[in-house]
Order: sequence, then structure tokens, then C-alpha cells
Amino acid sequence: MKIAVLGTGMVGQALAGRLSELGHEVTVGTRDVAATTAKTAPDEMGNPPYPAWAATHPQVRLATFADAAADAELLVNATSGAVSIGVLNSVGADHLVGKILLDIANPLDFSAGFPPGLFVKDTDSLGEQIQAAFPQLRVVKALNTLAATLMVDPRQLADGDHSVFVSGNDGDAKKTVVALLESFGHTDVVDLGDISTARGTEMLLPLWLRLMGALNTLTFNVKVVR
Amino acid sequence: MKIAVLGTGMVGQALAGRLSELGHEVTVGTRDVAATTAKTAPDEMGNPPYPAWAATHPQVRLATFADAAADAELLVNATSGAVSIGVLNSVGADHLVGKILLDIANPLDFSAGFPPGLFVKDTDSLGEQIQAAFPQLRVVKALNTLAATLMVDPRQLADGDHSVFVSGNDGDAKKTVVALLESFGHTDVVDLGDISTARGTEMLLPLWLRLMGALNTLTFNVKVVR
Repeated sequence: MKIAVLGTGMVGQALAGRLSELGHEVTVGTRDVAATTAKTAPDEMGNPPYPAWAATHPQVRLATFADAAADAELLVNATSGAVSIGVLNSVGADHLVGKILLDIANPLDFSAGFPPGLFVKDTDSLGEQIQAAFPQLRVVKALNTLAATLMVDPRQLADGDHSVFVSGNDGDAKKTVVALLESFGHTDVVDLGDISTARGTEMLLPLWLRLMGALNTLTFNVKVVR
Repeated sequence: MKIAVLGTGMVGQALAGRLSELGHEVTVGTRDVAATTAKTAPDEMGNPPYPAWAATHPQVRLATFADAAADAELLVNATSGAVSIGVLNSVGADHLVGKILLDIANPLDFSAGFPPGLFVKDTDSLGEQIQAAFPQLRVVKALNTLAATLMVDPRQLADGDHSVFVSGNDGDAKKTVVALLESFGHTDVVDLGDISTARGTEMLLPLWLRLMGALNTLTFNVKVVR
């Protein structure tokens, strides 16, 4: 599949690398190709700059958000929640029609420090805001509930015996995303329902952040035991 | 231990029954003893009225909130979140000094129908509001993340192989609550930290409610895989 991964950070790199490894034709989208290519400093989390990652993934192309999305069948929103709608606006409405958006972003609000709160919750969600702003997209919220390394390689933890979720209004789009998640190694993908159920997974983040503190690791996830 | 369970609903009954079975001296607290004793209709969830439950649990006493709490060492908040602070006010400050409150309530807001939202979240929590309103209490938030039957008998599901959480400012109070949870059969009690971490577990409710819909059962829980 032709896939555009929007966002050059840790989540974007993890998704782009894994999708490429699985044989997809991947283009990473960024705001300013020259600026991204010129980066030499690690990001604020201490991850290597994009060019260092790109050097080991020569098959992954880098382009503007619009160019990356232009002929992609599926888009991955791996941007920060606060800028997601702006990024999709800069892709341009014409490049979104009928496409699947795998939305991994969380509406994290760092304005009061760490742990962050959520800038939308409870009566609305980022997934719903994106779907409402871009009705031509088929938005599927998924993978926003675990660390980037586990998103794309769940077998690193307990041989993959844990759960992920999908929320979305379009059944076919969800099927496509579920198949992608299964190709990553996920064995328990719970379909929560329409895109409004993204409220549930986005609101898991406050617990996830405190578990990260209590367990002192990013390598954990929830399993829905039933 | 002498324990007061505040609330006569499904959660109160489950806790009172199990604690009594384990040898604790349990009094259930209610607003109006005569009114509770006179109930003949099932509640809005279809559960039998309190007198039907009480008939099979003769060792559990029923008293006013204040009388139930008067000589209890530990209180269980099994009231609806919307009335919890009012109920503790009616217990009276004198009966709260130094006592542990196991707070099971969730700040559910049914004003917009089902599924409910939360009337406090993200930058505050019901657990914190109770601790702030009653600084003489040692509040421990726990058990608000699973169905009543599983709270008190976790081995009903996957032989108890799933997780519960505690949040609270007082280490000794948390130890007492953890020991109680273990006596119920819980084997994985995750200490998230101080009472502000109750934001995490209370905000799990939106996901819990949608899982209940997707799985069509109350008999499920999360396990923290790490």
C-alpha cells in the first residue's frame, strides 16, 4: 500500500520504519523538508534527529505534508495532537478525499507541565474533531494507547498478549487498519465502535502517564481480560 | 476490623457482603433507615431492593451514615459520585478524624444520557475533591475501575489475573487497603502514587463504559502487562 506518515518524530519514525519493513511504499510528510533534513540535534526526548534515522531507512522518502499525501491510499497522523488539524489543513482537502486516516495523536496539553492534561475530552475527542473537520477522510483512531515501540512491535512485550483498540465510523476503513495492526503482530484488536469511542482511548492517557511513572518504563500495555 | 459501608446500592451490597464474609464487623450507612428498610421495588438497574439483600445478610447492621461511621475504623464510599461529598458531610466531621476512606465512587455525569461523562476530570478528581473537603480523612481511591462483583471476587474472571489500582497520600492507609484488596483475591494491586493519580483511574471510566458496550458484559477488567 502507498502510505504517508505525517510527522517525523518518534511515533512517525516507528510507524514509517515498520510499514516500510513490511513492504509498503512509505513517504514521511513534514512541514519543511529542508529544515527537517538539516536537523542535527536530538529532539526534546533525546531521540536522534530525523536525518540520523533516515540514513538507516533509505527506502523511506521525505516530502512535504501535501506531497506525501498526494498519492497515498492511507495516511498516518503521527503529529502532536495540538497541531494535527493544522497539518491536515496544509495537506489540502483535495488530497484527503476518501482516504483512510489512522489517527495516533493524543490531545495532550502541556501548558501546566508534566504530566500533561487533555485539551479535549469527555464530551468530544481529537478523533471526532478531525473527523468533523475533514468529513472526506475515513478516520480510524488506534494505537494512541501505548508506546511507539510497542505500537509497531507488540511481541516485544509478553509475546504480544495485550490489547489495542479501534474507533471509527467506516467499517471498511477499520478492517484495513485492523489488518495493518495484525501485520504488526497485534493479536487482540478491540473494535469499540464509532469515532466517538475515541473519547475512551484518549482519556486512557492520564492513567497511562501515571503508570509510566509508577512502573518506571514505557514497555507496558493493558490487556482487556474477559 | 469495624467497617462502615456508605451506600446501599449494588456496590455497597457487594462490599458489605464480602467484608462481612471475611469476618469484619460491617454496618451499612444510609440516609434514612426507615425508607431503606421499606423499599420493595428493584433499583433502576433491576437489582433487588436492600431489604431482600439484608434478609440474606442478617449479620450486617443498617444505620444512618453518622451512626454507621461513628465507631468504624474504615469507611467505604459506595455512594454515587454526585452525592459523595454531601454524604460525608452528613456523617459529620467528628466521625471522620484519622479514618481511612476507601473511595470507590466515580464522578459520573448522566445529564446528557448514556454513556455518562465525568463531572470532574483531568485537572482534578473526585478523590482529590473528597480529600480536600475532608483533610482529616485518609482517602484511598481504589476499585472504581471494575464491576462490583469483580471488585470483591476477582477470581471469577481469569482466576484473578488482572489489575486494580490504589491512589492516596497516606502510605499506611494504602497498606491497609491493599491488604483488604488482597483478602478479596486481588493479586496485582498497582500503587499509582498520591491521590492526584485518581485522575487516571476515574478517567478510565469512559473506556470502561465503551468496553462494556463492545463486549456486552460487565465481567471484564484490564490487566497491566509489563
